[in-house]
Amino acid sequence: MENIQITSDGKLNHLLSIEGLSKKIIEDIFLKADSFLDSNNNNVKKVDLLNGKTIFNLFFENSTRTRTTFEIAAKKLSADVINLNVDTSSQSKGESILDTINNLIAMHADMFVIRHGQSGAPYFIAKNIDSRIKVINAGDGNHAHPTQGLLDAYTIRHFKKEFHNLKIAIIGDIKHSRVARSDINALNLLGVPEIRVVGPNTLIPSGIEDLGVIPYSNMNDGIKDVDVIMMLRLQKERMDNALIPSQEEYFKAYGLTKERMLLANKNAIVMHPGPMNRGVEIESAVADSKQAVILSQVSFGIAIRMAVMAILLED
Amino acid sequence: MENIQITSDGKLNHLLSIEGLSKKIIEDIFLKADSFLDSNNNNVKKVDLLNGKTIFNLFFENSTRTRTTFEIAAKKLSADVINLNVDTSSQSKGESILDTINNLIAMHADMFVIRHGQSGAPYFIAKNIDSRIKVINAGDGNHAHPTQGLLDAYTIRHFKKEFHNLKIAIIGDIKHSRVARSDINALNLLGVPEIRVVGPNTLIPSGIEDLGVIPYSNMNDGIKDVDVIMMLRLQKERMDNALIPSQEEYFKAYGLTKERMLLANKNAIVMHPGPMNRGVEIESAVADSKQAVILSQVSFGIAIRMAVMAILLED
Amino acid sequence: MENIQITSDGKLNHLLSIEGLSKKIIEDIFLKADSFLDSNNNNVKKVDLLNGKTIFNLFFENSTRTRTTFEIAAKKLSADVINLNVDTSSQSKGESILDTINNLIAMHADMFVIRHGQSGAPYFIAKNIDSRIKVINAGDGNHAHPTQGLLDAYTIRHFKKEFHNLKIAIIGDIKHSRVARSDINALNLLGVPEIRVVGPNTLIPSGIEDLGVIPYSNMNDGIKDVDVIMMLRLQKERMDNALIPSQEEYFKAYGLTKERMLLANKNAIVMHPGPMNRGVEIESAVADSKQAVILSQVSFGIAIRMAVMAILLED
Repeated sequence: MENIQITSDGKLNHLLSIEGLSKKIIEDIFLKADSFLDSNNNNVKKVDLLNGKTIFNLFFENSTRTRTTFEIAAKKLSADVINLNVDTSSQSKGESILDTINNLIAMHADMFVIRHGQSGAPYFIAKNIDSRIKVINAGDGNHAHPTQGLLDAYTIRHFKKEFHNLKIAIIGDIKHSRVARSDINALNLLGVPEIRVVGPNTLIPSGIEDLGVIPYSNMNDGIKDVDVIMMLRLQKERMDNALIPSQEEYFKAYGLTKERMLLANKNAIVMHPGPMNRGVEIESAVADSKQAVILSQVSFGIAIRMAVMAILLED
Repeated sequence: MENIQITSDGKLNHLLSIEGLSKKIIEDIFLKADSFLDSNNNNVKKVDLLNGKTIFNLFFENSTRTRTTFEIAAKKLSADVINLNVDTSSQSKGESILDTINNLIAMHADMFVIRHGQSGAPYFIAKNIDSRIKVINAGDGNHAHPTQGLLDAYTIRHFKKEFHNLKIAIIGDIKHSRVARSDINALNLLGVPEIRVVGPNTLIPSGIEDLGVIPYSNMNDGIKDVDVIMMLRLQKERMDNALIPSQEEYFKAYGLTKERMLLANKNAIVMHPGPMNRGVEIESAVADSKQAVILSQVSFGIAIRMAVMAILLED
Repeated sequence: MENIQITSDGKLNHLLSIEGLSKKIIEDIFLKADSFLDSNNNNVKKVDLLNGKTIFNLFFENSTRTRTTFEIAAKKLSADVINLNVDTSSQSKGESILDTINNLIAMHADMFVIRHGQSGAPYFIAKNIDSRIKVINAGDGNHAHPTQGLLDAYTIRHFKKEFHNLKIAIIGDIKHSRVARSDINALNLLGVPEIRVVGPNTLIPSGIEDLGVIPYSNMNDGIKDVDVIMMLRLQKERMDNALIPSQEEYFKAYGLTKERMLLANKNAIVMHPGPMNRGVEIESAVADSKQAVILSQVSFGIAIRMAVMAILLED
């Protein structure tokens, strides 16, 4: 695929995946996000940057939670937001996806935040529309979830300051996870020397080493001495598909417990993209512990999404 | 239950029920509501008070009508509003209610307006979250609907000026009505000397006298000489449950008719929380008469909700 | 029906149908729309005109696309917008339509944008409410879709400059189309000398000549030498009703193809209200050609809706 997300002079043009971004672009996004946070790094203030711009949340796959994060980010920037769940809309009248998009552009849309069940849909859209309109991928199939990758890396930067000295384990269903893919790409770009992926063999794609990560099928080995533990959400349908034996056995083998936490670096942080399945991939005692930075991820996620929107739309 | 809705220095901290409020707090809410109304007490102007604040309408039980009143109140205060119907959202992914709430707080929510089918849910939430976040109960089970209680009292204050000389009858399904409960609490606090509850014995809880009200099972006796008639909406499911015989017989026994209106004080006002069942609990000739102040209740409801939001969130 | 959409001093009071408007009123709307477009006639800027006003999109019939155009127009004017799909709301609690409307007015609504499956519903509402509240008909049954009529005429004005020298063909299901009805009325008012309606006899109402149009059942004759081709969307249910034989035969007889375009004036423009059925009423090669101004219609539609809203609500 052509790299349409960078302009010829190296600027961010769309955000479709972490792949194809430069370290410089990611660092610029981080600096912009910093500017939206208060001195405690806790709150974001409403700013006037995108007043007059119209941002469409175009969700072909329902996700109230993710849509809400983008809606809040846009409103904090004073943009107007239109939420559209497309399966209930003109799509059902047999209109093609590009006709729908071009109609919305004619309604003076400035940006689309797109979630789609099919990998590559946001790329397809970005490639085929007027170049003044910007696209953010909010999750496409098993492919990418780049704002999640960015906010995860930003959270790690906040708590660990540096990337060059970290051991990081990503744990769970690596195979079907767009979050894992985006995390791995971001952490590689930022210079993390050791990235491990941990899970049952059925949930780790063969050839994953090519991405510069080390696979582990044993959880205890996988989290030994790591500085960052990134849990993934276990989709219930994996059990239906018999890719894992049962919820109980999965928890026994890969659940993150207080006991297992002792194997990691004692200052290790625990992350999760949410929503958590307590008792399935993570024990409540861990989820609610001081080491868990799960709510910080959510909070930083607003600042990161504001940063991407502002960089793409500011004149 | 601990009274978490008042701070140690006597200020409003959440609005969960009328019980536990002081007369002073209610009067302050009324004064604030006054300030949003124009000189005719008809219109509210948009103000800038909550610009930059984010208010979540978190409805675990669907009510477009009530949600809209809070949405309008928030927008008139220049807040950003996010509407979430939770049954269709992350709740369905098995996330616990507190995980959902804490995630939304991490997204920089300042206030939750919560409707929930279970009594006590808003209290549970308010008790378990960061104390900087404010909660308004928009109706929980059979328990309370405090903004309705406040707006009803505010409407009475507008039309009757004083509370200390009033006879008020609340008519209908007292047993299952959170509106009745909140009305009774508010009117007691404000010093109404005579509050009657009127309805079939099956729909009046035993021991209701403990709340300082007088039960009547005969409608004509119940409305004799009253100054204010507060009708309740009859839920269709009460008939299914055989708590009342039939719609026709209910109307015969407890419907508010022009004829029955002659029994009340000739300046009596008629109230209803809406939506009305014309011909079930109230005759159209009464609903559309000069004595009916039902639309004033709706209009004042916006000012009251603005007042509560402003008091809770203003710095 | 009484003409309630014009005040006694000739000003626009509601927009319910094109019938009953004067040429002057339409031209004023066009001038107002001009003022919202930039010098390229491409973009509309956000303005502060309706700050503090609350506009309800009240859709008794679902149409995300149309609702979105009104939502964007209102937001570009800085109004607050409340979207209500009424079938899922209080209507289901057995509240009458006027009770619903009067409740929303009491919530300080300034304007209703109404779509309803029954012809005349917006008129009924406008006639029965407080005269300070304004109504825009966003499509009612087979009756009217006046903003579509206005935006279509505005698009023709943009591309053709004058109306007095035009031949225009409207093609498709004339009988069931509120768009056709509004287009015919607008074009007649603006002085178009020759309006043709083209379609199978089953889809052209008898007596259509009374509207000042010429019916054609032969497509090639109908588009010969015309300057403007206005396609209508073919509703699938017309086939179910056996009003047309099959999709293929319809396309053969009335589909707009590159080949047929040669019969029209060589500068003819092609219009469609959307969403298009490519391959049913229009060939993709035509829909995507330079002569197609379909997306301009959408873009001008925002400016036209802004103009109508501003004229109705500006003090």
